Amino acid sequence: MDLATLVGLIVGTIVVVVAILIGGSGLAPFINIPSILIVIGGSFSATLMRFPIRECFTAMKTGFGRAFREQMDDPMALIETAKELADVARKKGLIALENVSVANPLMAKGVQYCSDGRDAEFIREMMTKEINASIARNEMGEKIFRALGDAAPAFGMIGTLVGLVQMLLELSDPTKIGPAMAVALLTTLYGALLANLLFLPLADKLDTRAQQDRNSRQLILDSVLGINAGVSPRVLEETLLVGLPQNAQKADNGNTEDSIAAEPA
Amino acid sequence: MDLATLVGLIVGTIVVVVAILIGGSGLAPFINIPSILIVIGGSFSATLMRFPIRECFTAMKTGFGRAFREQMDDPMALIETAKELADVARKKGLIALENVSVANPLMAKGVQYCSDGRDAEFIREMMTKEINASIARNEMGEKIFRALGDAAPAFGMIGTLVGLVQMLLELSDPTKIGPAMAVALLTTLYGALLANLLFLPLADKLDTRAQQDRNSRQLILDSVLGINAGVSPRVLEETLLVGLPQNAQKADNGNTEDSIAAEPA
Amino acid sequence: MDLATLVGLIVGTIVVVVAILIGGSGLAPFINIPSILIVIGGSFSATLMRFPIRECFTAMKTGFGRAFREQMDDPMALIETAKELADVARKKGLIALENVSVANPLMAKGVQYCSDGRDAEFIREMMTKEINASIARNEMGEKIFRALGDAAPAFGMIGTLVGLVQMLLELSDPTKIGPAMAVALLTTLYGALLANLLFLPLADKLDTRAQQDRNSRQLILDSVLGINAGVSPRVLEETLLVGLPQNAQKADNGNTEDSIAAEPA
Amino acid sequence: MDLATLVGLIVGTIVVVVAILIGGSGLAPFINIPSILIVIGGSFSATLMRFPIRECFTAMKTGFGRAFREQMDDPMALIETAKELADVARKKGLIALENVSVANPLMAKGVQYCSDGRDAEFIREMMTKEINASIARNEMGEKIFRALGDAAPAFGMIGTLVGLVQMLLELSDPTKIGPAMAVALLTTLYGALLANLLFLPLADKLDTRAQQDRNSRQLILDSVLGINAGVSPRVLEETLLVGLPQNAQKADNGNTEDSIAAEPA
Amino acid sequence: MDLATLVGLIVGTIVVVVAILIGGSGLAPFINIPSILIVIGGSFSATLMRFPIRECFTAMKTGFGRAFREQMDDPMALIETAKELADVARKKGLIALENVSVANPLMAKGVQYCSDGRDAEFIREMMTKEINASIARNEMGEKIFRALGDAAPAFGMIGTLVGLVQMLLELSDPTKIGPAMAVALLTTLYGALLANLLFLPLADKLDTRAQQDRNSRQLILDSVLGINAGVSPRVLEETLLVGLPQNAQKADNGNTEDSIAAEPA
Repeated sequence: MDLATLVGLIVGTIVVVVAILIGGSGLAPFINIPSILIVIGGSFSATLMRFPIRECFTAMKTGFGRAFREQMDDPMALIETAKELADVARKKGLIALENVSVANPLMAKGVQYCSDGRDAEFIREMMTKEINASIARNEMGEKIFRALGDAAPAFGMIGTLVGLVQMLLELSDPTKIGPAMAVALLTTLYGALLANLLFLPLADKLDTRAQQDRNSRQLILDSVLGINAGVSPRVLEETLLVGLPQNAQKADNGNTEDSIAAEPA
Repeated sequence: MDLATLVGLIVGTIVVVVAILIGGSGLAPFINIPSILIVIGGSFSATLMRFPIRECFTAMKTGFGRAFREQMDDPMALIETAKELADVARKKGLIALENVSVANPLMAKGVQYCSDGRDAEFIREMMTKEINASIARNEMGEKIFRALGDAAPAFGMIGTLVGLVQMLLELSDPTKIGPAMAVALLTTLYGALLANLLFLPLADKLDTRAQQDRNSRQLILDSVLGINAGVSPRVLEETLLVGLPQNAQKADNGNTEDSIAAEPA
Repeated sequence: MDLATLVGLIVGTIVVVVAILIGGSGLAPFINIPSILIVIGGSFSATLMRFPIRECFTAMKTGFGRAFREQMDDPMALIETAKELADVARKKGLIALENVSVANPLMAKGVQYCSDGRDAEFIREMMTKEINASIARNEMGEKIFRALGDAAPAFGMIGTLVGLVQMLLELSDPTKIGPAMAVALLTTLYGALLANLLFLPLADKLDTRAQQDRNSRQLILDSVLGINAGVSPRVLEETLLVGLPQNAQKADNGNTEDSIAAEPA
Repeated sequence: MDLATLVGLIVGTIVVVVAILIGGSGLAPFINIPSILIVIGGSFSATLMRFPIRECFTAMKTGFGRAFREQMDDPMALIETAKELADVARKKGLIALENVSVANPLMAKGVQYCSDGRDAEFIREMMTKEINASIARNEMGEKIFRALGDAAPAFGMIGTLVGLVQMLLELSDPTKIGPAMAVALLTTLYGALLANLLFLPLADKLDTRAQQDRNSRQLILDSVLGINAGVSPRVLEETLLVGLPQNAQKADNGNTEDSIAAEPA
Repeated sequence: MDLATLVGLIVGTIVVVVAILIGGSGLAPFINIPSILIVIGGSFSATLMRFPIRECFTAMKTGFGRAFREQMDDPMALIETAKELADVARKKGLIALENVSVANPLMAKGVQYCSDGRDAEFIREMMTKEINASIARNEMGEKIFRALGDAAPAFGMIGTLVGLVQMLLELSDPTKIGPAMAVALLTTLYGALLANLLFLPLADKLDTRAQQDRNSRQLILDSVLGINAGVSPRVLEETLLVGLPQNAQKADNGNTEDSIAAEPA
C-alpha cells in the first residue's frame, strides 16, 4: 500500500471539507449533480478521444492500481537474487542456470538467455527492447492522468460559462443572481479540485513510479550482464550497490562526521 | 473505425447538451451565428497563415480521416508477412522475393531492395529517409490541429471583448445588459468547447497515431533487414515480437504468478 | 506569392469586422488612437530591446517578405540541375564544372569546391557551416515575430489597466463608466488581435519556411556530395527523390490500392 | 549560513507587511486560520501524493537545510587537497595514499580506489554512478518544492472559490458582502505569497545548489583521475583551476585593460 | 552603446506616459509609493532567494552593463588579428608568437599555449573548459533578469490583492471604492510594466549577447587551432569567414541576381 498517495488524498479532502464546514454553509450547497456530470463526463470524453480506446481503459485501471500500491521490486532483494545466481553460474557454469527458478519475470528471461549461451550483445539488445516497450506502456498511464488533469479545469470553466450565460439571460429577479452564480462557480471548483487533488498528483506519482521501475530494470539488466560475464558475487554486489540512491545517501551522511582536514601521512 | 474518438466526441457533446438542458433555458439561447463565425473563421484564418496552403488543406482532410479510422498496420500481420518472406528468402534466395507481392507499400519497397541485391547499409539509409519523410507529413496534421486548438480560445476571447465593448457603449438600458453579456460570453464558450472537445484531443490522437506508425515502420525496417541478412523465420519472429508493447505486457502479467523466490537448483 | 498567409490574414480581418458590424455599433467606436499607440509602440519597443538593433530591422523587413512570398527553391528543379551537373561531371570530369553557371548560390559554391578539387570532408564542413549560419539568420526573424506576439497582449493589458485606473478615479458620473471601460478594453482587444491574427501566425509561417529551407539546403548538400563522388545522374535522382515528403506521399497513396495479401510465389 | 536566502525571505516579508500597514487596516484582518489551513494543508497533501512518502519527508527536511546553508565544498580547498594528494602519490606511490585521511567522503572513496590499484576506467565508472545517484537525490528536493509552489496558488484559488460560493448563497445582507469577499480573497493571497516568496525561490535555490554540487563533484572526479594518472601537483592545479567560473571571470577582467592591438614582434 | 536597448526603453516609456496623459488624469495618480515598494522590494527579495548572494549582485551589475553596451568583440577584427598571428607563426615558427601581444584575453591565452608548444588536443580541451565557464557566468545574468521578470507580475498581483482586501473591508463609503481600487490596480500595472518593458527584454538581450559571445569565442578557438596547425593566413580567413552570419547573408543577397538557369558548358 502506498501510504503517501492515500494519506495525501484523504488529508487533502478533509482539509477542503473542514474549510467548507467552517464557512457555516454546510456541505449540501456544494454538491451539484449537473456540475459533477459536466466536469467528469467532459474530462473523460476528451481524454478518451486522445488515446487508443483499449490502452485508455487499461491504463486508467492499472494507473490507479500502481499509484496506490507500493513499489514492486525491492532493489536489495534483486541484488540478493543476482548474487545467488552469480554464485550458481560461477560454480556450475551458465548452463546450470536453466534449473534455477527466478521470480522476477524480466530477470528470469535474462537468466534464460544466459543459460541458452547467448552473447552479451544479444542479451543487452533484447532486454533493452523489452525494457523500452514496458516503459512506453507505463508512460501511457501517466499521459492519461495528465490529460485528465488538463481537461478537468477546462470543463470546469465550460460549465461555469454555461451557468453564467443562463444566469445572465434571467437577470429580472435579483434574488436569484447569487445562488445561480454560486452554482455556476461550483463547476470551476470541481475542475480545480479534481485536477489538483487527484489527476495531476496521480500523474506525477506514476511518473515517480516509472522512474523507480526504470532504475530497477536497469539494475536487472546490469545483474544479468554481470552474471553472463562470470563476475564474482562480491564484485557484482559492489557494482550494483553503488548505483542505488539510498546507498549513496548513507555513504554521504555516514562519512561527513569523519576527519575534516586532509592529513598526508 | 476508431471508437475512442467517436465515442469521446459524442459522449462529450451529450454531456454538455444535457448540462445546458438541465439549466432550463433550452438550447436556443446557446446558438449565436456571429459568435460561431468569429471563432471558427478566426481560428481557421490564423491557422491558414501558419502553414503552407497546400499542406494545410491536405493535413486537415487526412487528419480528420486518420483520427477517426483505426490503426492501419496490424503488427502481428506484419510479423506474419515478414516470416513468410524470410522463409522464401531462405529457401529460394533473395532473388526469389521479386515474384512475391507484398501489400504494405513500405515493406514492398524494402523487399524489392532485397531482391535487387542492395546491401544492408543502402536499405537502411533509403528506408530511414522514406520513414522520416512520412513522419514529417504525419506531424503536420498534428501541428495544424494544435494550432487550431490554440487559436480557438484566443478568438473566443476576441469575440467576447467585441461583445463587451458594444455592451458597455450602451449601458443606458439596464435590462439589456444581461442578455448582451450572455451573448458576449458565448464566444468564449465556443472557443473553449472547440479547443477542448475537438481540436486538442484530435491533435493528441494524431500524435498517438504517429507514434504507432513510427513503431510499425520501425518493425518493417527491422523485418526487411532481417530478411536481407537471411535470418530464419523463427528467430525473426522472436526478435520482432520482443519490441511489441502488447507482448511485453502479456509477458509481465503472465509470469508474475510464477514462483516467487529464486531457488538455486 | 504565398496565398495562405494573405488569404488567412484577409479572411480573418473580414471575419472580425463582420462580427463587429453585426453587433450594430459600427466600426467607429472600435478605433482608438491612444490604444493603438500603446499596443504597437509598446510591443515594438520591448522587442527592440531584446535583439541587436541592426538584426531587428533586417529581420522584420525580410520576415514580412518571406512570410508573404512563396517558397524560393523548388526541390524538383534543384534535382534537375543536380542531374545535369552530375552528367557533366561524369562525362568531362569535375574540372569541367568550372564553366557551368549555377543559379542557386549555395549550389554554385558547392560546385566550385568540386571543380577546385576539394575533398568530400572539406565540402561537407564548409557547406554545413554556411547552412548553419543561414539557419541562424532565418531563426532570428521567427524569434522577433514571436517576441512581438508575446509583447502585444502584455501591452494590451497594460493599456487596459491604465484606462481602468483613470475610469476608477472618476466614478462620480455613472453614465461615463460604460464608455470609459469600453475604451479601456479596446487595448486588450488590439493586443489579442495583433498577437493571434498577425505576429504569432507570421512567426509560425517563418518557422515552416525555415524548415523548408533546411530541407532544400540539405538536398543541395547531398547533391554536391553526390556530384563530387561521381554518382551517376540516375542514381543521384533516385537518392534525392526519396528524401522528399511529396514523393513519399505519392508512393504511399499510389501503392495502397495494390494487392493486399503477401503472396509467396 | 546562506545570507541570500535568509535576507530575501526577511526583506520580502517586511515589504509585504509594511505595504499592508501603510494601507491602514492593520495586520489582523489579513490573518484567517481556515484560509491558512486550506492553502497549506492542500498544498502539502497534493505534494505528498506525488512522491514516495519517505523521500518526501527527507527531501523537505534536507531541502530547507540546504537552502539556508552555505555551499559545503569550497573548490579552492578541494584543489589544495588534490595537490597534496598528488604530491604524496608522486613521491611515495599510489599505495601510500592508503594512509592519508581525506575529509570529503567522495574524494576519500576515489583516493581509496587509487590506493587499491584500480584502473582509471573503473574509477570513472564507479564515481560517475555515485555522482549520478547523489544528483538524483538532490533533484528530488527541488522537485518537491516546485510541486508545493505549483499547488499553493491552485489551493489558493480553490479556497477563494469556496468562499465566493458561500458569499453568493447569502447575498441578502449587502453589508456582509465586502468582508466575506475579503476573506475569500485572502486564500488567493496566501497561495500567491507562499509560492512566490517561499516555495518557488527555494526550489530555484536548490537547483543552483545542485549545479554547484555537480561542479564540485566533477572537480573531485577530475582530481582523482589526475592523481591516479600521476599528474604533477602544478599541472593538476592548472587543469582544475581553468574549469572554475570564478577564475575565468578574474582572467577576463584582469586582462581587458592590457594592450589593445595585436603587435607582431 | 547598444542603441536598441536604450531606444526601446525610452520609446516604450514615452508611449506609456503619453497614453496616460491623453487619458487626461495627469501622471500624479499613477505614482504610488507603497505599490512601487511592494513590486520592486518583493521581486528583488524573491530573486535574491533564488541565487547565491555574491553572483546575484555581480550578475545584476554586469547584466545591466552588458545589456546597454555594444557587442565587445568585432568578428572581422578577430579574423584580422588571427591572420596576422598565422602569418607570424608561418614565417617565424610558433615560438615567435611569445613576443606578440594580443588584446583579446582568450586569444592571448590560446596563442600562449601555441608558443608553449602544447598540442591541439590540450589547447582544445583547456579553451573549451574556459569558454564553458564563461558561458555559465553569462547565463547567470540572463537567469536573474528572467527571475525578476517572473516575480514582478506575481508581486503586482499580491499588491493588488492586499489593496482589494483592504477596500472590501471598508465598503461603507461608496465614494472611496473607485480610488481605492485604482490604487490596488496600480500594483498590477507596475508589475506588468517592469516585467514587459524592463526585466524580460533585458533577459532576452543578455541571451542574444551570450549567443554572440559564444560565436566569437568559437571563432577564437578555431583561429588558435588553425594557427597552431600552421594554416596559411588566406585559408584561415576563408575558413573563419564562412561561419559568420553576416557573410553568409551577403553571399545570399549578392548572388541571387546572377544567372538563373544552370547552363552546362
